[in-house]
Amino acid sequence: MKTIAEYQELISNQIDILEDNRSQLALYDPVSYILSIGGKRLRPVLTLIGTDLFDGNLEDSYKSALGIEMFHNFTLLHDDIMDDAPLRRGKETVHEKWNINSAILSGDVMFVQAFVMVTSCKTEYLRSVLDLFNVTAIEVCEGQHLDMEFETREDVTIPEYIEMIKLKTSVLVGCALKLGAILADATEAEANLIYDFGLNLGIAFQIQDDILDVFGDAALFGKQVGGDILANKKTYLLLKALENANETQEEELNSWMNVTDYQAEQKVEAVTAIFNDLKVKEQAESVMWSYYDKSIEALNKIGLPKDKYDYLLNFSKSLMVRTK
Amino acid sequence: MKTIAEYQELISNQIDILEDNRSQLALYDPVSYILSIGGKRLRPVLTLIGTDLFDGNLEDSYKSALGIEMFHNFTLLHDDIMDDAPLRRGKETVHEKWNINSAILSGDVMFVQAFVMVTSCKTEYLRSVLDLFNVTAIEVCEGQHLDMEFETREDVTIPEYIEMIKLKTSVLVGCALKLGAILADATEAEANLIYDFGLNLGIAFQIQDDILDVFGDAALFGKQVGGDILANKKTYLLLKALENANETQEEELNSWMNVTDYQAEQKVEAVTAIFNDLKVKEQAESVMWSYYDKSIEALNKIGLPKDKYDYLLNFSKSLMVRTK
Repeated sequence: MKTIAEYQELISNQIDILEDNRSQLALYDPVSYILSIGGKRLRPVLTLIGTDLFDGNLEDSYKSALGIEMFHNFTLLHDDIMDDAPLRRGKETVHEKWNINSAILSGDVMFVQAFVMVTSCKTEYLRSVLDLFNVTAIEVCEGQHLDMEFETREDVTIPEYIEMIKLKTSVLVGCALKLGAILADATEAEANLIYDFGLNLGIAFQIQDDILDVFGDAALFGKQVGGDILANKKTYLLLKALENANETQEEELNSWMNVTDYQAEQKVEAVTAIFNDLKVKEQAESVMWSYYDKSIEALNKIGLPKDKYDYLLNFSKSLMVRTK
Repeated sequence: MKTIAEYQELISNQIDILEDNRSQLALYDPVSYILSIGGKRLRPVLTLIGTDLFDGNLEDSYKSALGIEMFHNFTLLHDDIMDDAPLRRGKETVHEKWNINSAILSGDVMFVQAFVMVTSCKTEYLRSVLDLFNVTAIEVCEGQHLDMEFETREDVTIPEYIEMIKLKTSVLVGCALKLGAILADATEAEANLIYDFGLNLGIAFQIQDDILDVFGDAALFGKQVGGDILANKKTYLLLKALENANETQEEELNSWMNVTDYQAEQKVEAVTAIFNDLKVKEQAESVMWSYYDKSIEALNKIGLPKDKYDYLLNFSKSLMVRTK
């Protein structure tokens, strides 16, 4: 196995090759742009890890891994339009830098490019790869739909929230790993277990993201602490707080969610105080660790050689103790 | 071979089956809606024709044919956002009936559904089918990009215009037929010839659409005659007129294109008069027939049995003598 940084470097090289061979049509400028502004390339790295875990040939997975990164970036491009987001990774979003029409159409063509690259594999794996990717892409759209729908719903339950984050973000983590495994000729059982590992780790990761948004160190986390609170985002923490609040706490939470004229810091402090009183952080952590445990259970069942098992275990732990 | 109406009926049945089995998630409401408001279903019909031409099993092509219709409707859904179109086939467009975000996301999931359905074929044909569909989907996006780009460009040439309509509309006609042929186990040469037939017929059809928009019978054509003139659309007719106009005619055309306060009927009459003086209709017809001839040339090379050859020839002729 290679270090995460080494895998990132391999993906970065593939993006350079793609860029060197790209069409000069202006349609592709936003595609190059969103790929160039980076991110951690976590998903394509997982595809390469999936291939190395089952002793596949890394070179056979480069294009499919890059396809996963393109798909992820396509979803960011369209999601940013829907969320009316001005910035992505600290840079102007595509619909701000160009316009909404360009963001729609360049996103569409990027989506096709993702299909092309993901399915650039040996024909013997094509049906499995395509079935996996098709299902995942549909689920990611459904997850984004639920996320938007939740904004206007007052009765979102915690199971619904978990289902939403599973669809919107975690299935792609599972898919990325499973894709690498398929291309390494892993058995179906192995491929499904590595998927379950990724899926559950992804859910744990997302719940941790909710926790860090409120309780993280602003400097390390790299975004404004309390952003979710200010946006009234129905995270695990807020839903749990609303579920367990007494009448006074519920009134206070609702009044902060409906207030229009307020000091940001004051709102974050007040809502965080209620979260603390209700110990929602501890409850969120408990749920987070239960998904982490599920992911390790799946990992245990694969029967990987010790060095590979340890590699994934350390990787998983490092994700769970992050502060950003 | 069946009649066009019979093929349309088969497609219509498939849409009903799809609808009966659909997810109840609101995400899919716009998908059902756009499929329900009809259209001629020409593209999926061509896939079934492609299969019958080469003695394939029609039932093996139903899903892929429907995937082509879904892809086409997905492009309409996103194009209507980009064009800010209020109506589609006389009904509210999706972004008007719901909102832009729904139109983007339901379009995206419809795009994945199109991939799922197009590739619902025997695994032996999967690589060919996927390669064909991927290339076509990319070309259609590029065509839409060029179409939008042309709106703000003053130097569009006729070859560029032909390239744009080829990408935006004709490649999908070729693809639909070739898809049916692949699924009927046609040879590569046969599949490519039927593609060329469809591609060139599609270009001829689109040029005829430009002609009918100006010179068609309003009642039969079903849309406002002169719509392209009023929208200053850079059709073959306008580009040819600008190319051949003398100084006075060019000034007059430009002044009509830049005027903001005018009677619609007067503008259509004046521009049509210049088109008549310059005989652009006749020139457009000549180009249209040259693409028609190319399509028949490709058809001749296939070596189909006489009844099938005659079927396609009659179908092609019927498209060319239409008044709507």
